Amino acid sequence: MAPSDSRPPLYLDDLAVGDRFDSGTLVVEAEEVRSFAERFDPQPFHLDEAAARASVFGGLAASGWHTAALTMRLLVQSLPLGCGVIGAGTELAWPRPTRPGDTLRVSSTVLEIAPSNSKPDRGIVTCRSETLNQDGGCVQRMTAKLLVLRRPGAVG
Amino acid sequence: MAPSDSRPPLYLDDLAVGDRFDSGTLVVEAEEVRSFAERFDPQPFHLDEAAARASVFGGLAASGWHTAALTMRLLVQSLPLGCGVIGAGTELAWPRPTRPGDTLRVSSTVLEIAPSNSKPDRGIVTCRSETLNQDGGCVQRMTAKLLVLRRPGAVG
Repeated sequence: MAPSDSRPPLYLDDLAVGDRFDSGTLVVEAEEVRSFAERFDPQPFHLDEAAARASVFGGLAASGWHTAALTMRLLVQSLPLGCGVIGAGTELAWPRPTRPGDTLRVSSTVLEIAPSNSKPDRGIVTCRSETLNQDGGCVQRMTAKLLVLRRPGAVG
Repeated sequence: MAPSDSRPPLYLDDLAVGDRFDSGTLVVEAEEVRSFAERFDPQPFHLDEAAARASVFGGLAASGWHTAALTMRLLVQSLPLGCGVIGAGTELAWPRPTRPGDTLRVSSTVLEIAPSNSKPDRGIVTCRSETLNQDGGCVQRMTAKLLVLRRPGAVG
């Protein structure tokens, strides 16, 4: 996975609607599925194989918040924004479960760019990020409003 | 914080629009703010005090995904759903940062109840959950679509 500092940092002025950013991959570790769920989402279908089989998930599933956190890890590495990846708000859906052992990647597309009227140094970029497993199945669909700064010195 | 199993489990039939559920509290541990960010959201404003002061956050801030995960922990303990707390999708906003040392609680209100047309054993409950700090400031506003089952045996 390419470290984000291998590419020049991007600012609001550098982005265009339709720009696409593809991440590297990571493997969802079974031990982390358990430890994340124990700490943040201690429900049987994230912790116990038999209980998970009997649930709507049909088998052990990672917490959706674990999927979201792993997606963020991939986003930080694939969206080389000069100001960092800062979400003001987001919509999330989990069309199918993330399973222990899945290999995830994230594909992000710029949908809209709105310079701020009140703060000339920044804008809001709407970005759709799909988190896909090894079969191309979408485990998370996210539409995020990102706070993105203009290039330092670009504001008169 | 009351364990969820001290109250009878709730099913779709037990919920009404306007029902409110208040969680206990938890303290945001500085060490966990760091370890969560290192693993999932390794950006300077979550890890380094000086960099955070110079950022839009004005000081060290927890990852929004850490706030979301801690909110889930409080939700699992405060929403005693018989089928568990299962999100189909959600909207999230982070009106202000979560700081190390903050004490968080979650207040949830049922906004809408929609029995499924195609699957008579379940429905979608729209629930707004506000995560508040010790000053009553809202650090996360979430509107979630929860999958909630009807009471076992309630379907003819």
